[in-house]
Amino acid sequence: MFKQITILAPGLLGASLATAVKDRQLADRNVIWARRAETRVACSDQSWCDHVTDSLEEAVGEADLVVVCSPVETIHPLVVRISPHLKKGALVTDVGSTKSLITRYCHTVIPLGRQFVGSHPMAGSEKSGMAHARKDLFCGKTCFITPLVDTDEKAVEAILRFWKELDMEVATVSPERHDEIVAHISHLPHVLASVLCSFLSTKDSSWGNFAGDGLRDTTRVAGGGAAIWKSIIEQNREEIVRAISQFENELQSLKSAIANSQSFDILNHLKRGKAYRDRLRSSQ
Amino acid sequence: MFKQITILAPGLLGASLATAVKDRQLADRNVIWARRAETRVACSDQSWCDHVTDSLEEAVGEADLVVVCSPVETIHPLVVRISPHLKKGALVTDVGSTKSLITRYCHTVIPLGRQFVGSHPMAGSEKSGMAHARKDLFCGKTCFITPLVDTDEKAVEAILRFWKELDMEVATVSPERHDEIVAHISHLPHVLASVLCSFLSTKDSSWGNFAGDGLRDTTRVAGGGAAIWKSIIEQNREEIVRAISQFENELQSLKSAIANSQSFDILNHLKRGKAYRDRLRSSQ
Repeated sequence: MFKQITILAPGLLGASLATAVKDRQLADRNVIWARRAETRVACSDQSWCDHVTDSLEEAVGEADLVVVCSPVETIHPLVVRISPHLKKGALVTDVGSTKSLITRYCHTVIPLGRQFVGSHPMAGSEKSGMAHARKDLFCGKTCFITPLVDTDEKAVEAILRFWKELDMEVATVSPERHDEIVAHISHLPHVLASVLCSFLSTKDSSWGNFAGDGLRDTTRVAGGGAAIWKSIIEQNREEIVRAISQFENELQSLKSAIANSQSFDILNHLKRGKAYRDRLRSSQ
Repeated sequence: MFKQITILAPGLLGASLATAVKDRQLADRNVIWARRAETRVACSDQSWCDHVTDSLEEAVGEADLVVVCSPVETIHPLVVRISPHLKKGALVTDVGSTKSLITRYCHTVIPLGRQFVGSHPMAGSEKSGMAHARKDLFCGKTCFITPLVDTDEKAVEAILRFWKELDMEVATVSPERHDEIVAHISHLPHVLASVLCSFLSTKDSSWGNFAGDGLRDTTRVAGGGAAIWKSIIEQNREEIVRAISQFENELQSLKSAIANSQSFDILNHLKRGKAYRDRLRSSQ
């Protein structure tokens, strides 16, 4: 599909992507760029890495597709740095969890004849790092792509096909719509899990030992990297604040029904929640 | 360990318990009481059921141990009904998720020479019903027992041994302390998952299709039976309202940090949450 794919910053997502690309033969050559020497050493041992370098110029010069897999706050800076070295016709995408700022910024810095199309594969884990890479990390998951109105159609089509080749369900939406959606289905759940954990940490520390699978599942995502999530939250600030406020109203409404022993209202809340959750389950 | 164990109301917990008791030979004879004819028919086919009946008198008359496995709001009424038929020395316990009301009420109705000791095995699933019963449902989980100060010590010891024989970690606490603990580690997480789902159900219904494992795990418990959870919430009203209020303060504090772009405070919240979650993981 491509002669060369270059992956910048091989953490869990980048390394999983390289593995999947090799497994499905989507590129003749996988080139990896990593900032840290120890990461480059680790990469050089991997069958999914044909060449590894610390030079961005060398990494992207011959690339047909560059996938930026770094934390969200460094995606735009990296695209700025690679832009002068991209060959004509090169495609650039990313895997960042926010899209409005990244897509707008990157679109403006990409030189004529090269194209940026933002992506967000909804795949990951609370475990980070290359060591947890899996070639099936993306299979069956959603991937958002967020072209702008003036993004080249062939570029959009190529990025769409790329994710589909990895067995992803691709949804094309505007960057702003993307950020609204993930604020609700990903960032808000993360915030709630994290706040639940930070709240419980103020209580008797032995209580955690009694917890069943319910608490464990409900809070799993709170084990994700704090710095990574801080950046995601900051890049999607307005949508997340709006989603939290609306959630607070819903919580306040159930709390008041509980405090006032309004059985019918309590039941109604729980039934609406269950109905939504049951549809979620059957959709997989 | 016992000649006869009688299990009232064989749903997920009751049937799993009967299976585990048979597997570990904790009783010579398992007697099951079920209200509904179709449940009795289903039980009569099971190897873990030596006798099934719709008569409470017949079910408990010869029982050394009676385990009430019905929803929380019917535990006390059932104990009232079986009390006149219990033989001398009989032990009664339950598996209800709340303990203050149940333990106090049941303690007062049990006749002299018989003993009630409240239990709450922290095992279960969002799936309910006999069909999902598993003999290992209790293994490695916590079981609270909640004796009162004047509960017979031998009875407490026997109930404690019973749960330990099922490979449970037993924690002995007062009913009030139990309700405070589970309000935080079980009921609050359930309320949050449920409110998150009922909130998301007010949004574009297609969004659920995009959701990753994060939302699925965070909300799994919201798939639990609405009527069952309504009763649990009502029986632990005060503790749950208090826990929600404190959670609201913590959420408000993070929301304000996000709205005001206070990076350090956001990071701090997330770090405290992650530290708690990481301890939770390592404890299993």
